[in-house]
Amino acid sequence: MDVHDLTRSLIIKNDSKIVMLVADGLGGLPLQPGGPTELEAAATPNLDALARRGVQGLSLPVLPGISPGSGPGHLGLFGYDPLRYVIGRGSLEATGIGFELQEGDVAIRCNFCTLDKQGRIVDRRAGRIPTPESSALVHKLRDIQIDGVEVFVEPVKEHRFVVVFRGDGLGGNVRDTDPQQTGVPPLDPVASDAASAKTADVAKQFLDQARRILAGEANANFHTMRGFAAKPNLPPYEEVYGLRAAAIAVYPMYKGLARLVGMTVVGTPATLDEQIDLLAQQWQKYDFFFVHFKYTDSTGEDGNFDEKVKRTEQFDAVLPRISALNPTVILVTGDHSTPSLLRSHSWHPVPTLIVSDCCRTDSCEAFGETEAIRGGLGQFEAKHLMTLALANAGRLNKYGA
Amino acid sequence: MDVHDLTRSLIIKNDSKIVMLVADGLGGLPLQPGGPTELEAAATPNLDALARRGVQGLSLPVLPGISPGSGPGHLGLFGYDPLRYVIGRGSLEATGIGFELQEGDVAIRCNFCTLDKQGRIVDRRAGRIPTPESSALVHKLRDIQIDGVEVFVEPVKEHRFVVVFRGDGLGGNVRDTDPQQTGVPPLDPVASDAASAKTADVAKQFLDQARRILAGEANANFHTMRGFAAKPNLPPYEEVYGLRAAAIAVYPMYKGLARLVGMTVVGTPATLDEQIDLLAQQWQKYDFFFVHFKYTDSTGEDGNFDEKVKRTEQFDAVLPRISALNPTVILVTGDHSTPSLLRSHSWHPVPTLIVSDCCRTDSCEAFGETEAIRGGLGQFEAKHLMTLALANAGRLNKYGA
Repeated sequence: MDVHDLTRSLIIKNDSKIVMLVADGLGGLPLQPGGPTELEAAATPNLDALARRGVQGLSLPVLPGISPGSGPGHLGLFGYDPLRYVIGRGSLEATGIGFELQEGDVAIRCNFCTLDKQGRIVDRRAGRIPTPESSALVHKLRDIQIDGVEVFVEPVKEHRFVVVFRGDGLGGNVRDTDPQQTGVPPLDPVASDAASAKTADVAKQFLDQARRILAGEANANFHTMRGFAAKPNLPPYEEVYGLRAAAIAVYPMYKGLARLVGMTVVGTPATLDEQIDLLAQQWQKYDFFFVHFKYTDSTGEDGNFDEKVKRTEQFDAVLPRISALNPTVILVTGDHSTPSLLRSHSWHPVPTLIVSDCCRTDSCEAFGETEAIRGGLGQFEAKHLMTLALANAGRLNKYGA
Repeated sequence: MDVHDLTRSLIIKNDSKIVMLVADGLGGLPLQPGGPTELEAAATPNLDALARRGVQGLSLPVLPGISPGSGPGHLGLFGYDPLRYVIGRGSLEATGIGFELQEGDVAIRCNFCTLDKQGRIVDRRAGRIPTPESSALVHKLRDIQIDGVEVFVEPVKEHRFVVVFRGDGLGGNVRDTDPQQTGVPPLDPVASDAASAKTADVAKQFLDQARRILAGEANANFHTMRGFAAKPNLPPYEEVYGLRAAAIAVYPMYKGLARLVGMTVVGTPATLDEQIDLLAQQWQKYDFFFVHFKYTDSTGEDGNFDEKVKRTEQFDAVLPRISALNPTVILVTGDHSTPSLLRSHSWHPVPTLIVSDCCRTDSCEAFGETEAIRGGLGQFEAKHLMTLALANAGRLNKYGA
């Protein structure tokens, strides 16, 4: 049985409140063997106090050895098997800039490129054209009209932009037009299945109009299309968990991922403190709150151990404000590890904590990678976290009689 | 998504070296409750030193409670789900005697038997005819010729031998001809599916000719056929992991299993020291080395606790020679447990160790069953070991963006 068929059939609605705190890239590594990880080096009195009340363990974002991107990392935490639910590149790019995808949308990553007089690509990135210039061209492309399809053109950065087609019968399986080399013309968009024939035709019309609009440009006189992707079909939180869910995030990517599973994105906070302000303000309106903290990841990606330690302490410092709201269940986790040592996302399992009045506390005294090894949750795939949260909130009926 | 589709899509090639040391039947049991296992009783200073640098855990060869044979035990370690990939009995028997199966081969286990004058089986094993006599008969059977099919007949032991048919369109699903009782004639080979009709016909021709060749024998005047099996279709290491893999084993069975996943079998070592000599000699030519040590299993099967302890110490003693090669990743594991107490393969999870510069060391001080319980790898299905090895070697890209 699909786990969402199971949770759907077991939903209980009550007044409980669940807060999922995601410190992006939370897990780490010691700089020297035997040393502390970033989380262990940080002074985290509030997390440690929660660890003594709660139960911890290590969550595997995807499978042992697999390092996830932000998409699969968050899908797992949200309860969706990240190997079954795949967010295509175009959808992820659109999501990342805050574009709100709707059912039936097809999103495409586009690159401005430079063609020679024979129509062959001489630069696949149009000289990495600066963002302001690129944005001006994107605005010109918004003049493109195609019968029966709504068209969106959105700037991203430098030579990159996103196109979204909205309409009926648009499949997402169309081959890239970027030939991945110079000296040859761009390819035509070709459908990989019958359901995507209309999409390929619409893309062809778009490209024909774009070629005319851009013809006079010195560098960016055309563009390629790749990563065609239909909006992923993720059953929404309200339906599979019975939760009115709010997302409180600073960065567009995480707002977008939350929207894909039916969360309501609230506010436009710029800091963690503003995120917690919003949490308090919205407390009565929602059952579940996803709060995303970015800087434990970005400092890890920078290879800055000390700064990741500081950001972890900053994260720790807001916990009393959250506890003061008296949530039924607090979850603290990360979407993956980002050890400063590796300067990248990694496969290492992520310290994860559940605090509730019925969580069956373990004997852990602090929150961290080493302590979590002997935690009561053991090691588990992240996709199971949501059912644990619902159970701790009294929101799941017994399965079977 | 299939895990091999996943690894295929994430392969990074680099100069790292991975060594997988398999001490067959490594895990054990104490003779008395509270006593040490064989591995814990052994003096293993080198394994213990690796344990302090590495991360350990307990691998489940198949699933909790399932004791595997050598085939599934090794398939799991090699990263192939042993419940999905099944090596048929005929293929395993051929592999075990070192016969190199090719795509499209069908292998069959055969038993010499004794028929009475009415053609009824009076002895299903032809009086357990001695191996030299049996081998002489096998050589006679090599005269058998069948149009359009290459035929191999190979001795095994006593009344047992193997037949392999090589040719186009040979399915592997043919019913056994051994009726599993005496007083009745052998059965005809009957195809269980349309794709195996030709195989059944070829087997019938083989049996007709064998009956004439063996007619004058006192005991072994015919033979049965069972365990028909096509070569299992295992995607090879190079393709799914991007690894040039070498197998360094003494016994044919393990060479054969390695060959089935596309490893190159190097050398003909007779001792563990010779295996390590080969490892050093082949160091530059391969990315991955599977080194198999048999005697921790065979002594366990003999119920000889003390001898298994000694063999474990012999295994430990070669580790400095391996570390001297400076491998990127060292894996130490077993394909299953073989407790002397049980004199057989068992289901108990197997102490497993990963050593690399980014393995996230745990606090274990020694290598063994009890210590592994508090290891950083937790308990995991053996099939995940290869992705962990690749991750530690920096050979897997991030999954998703």
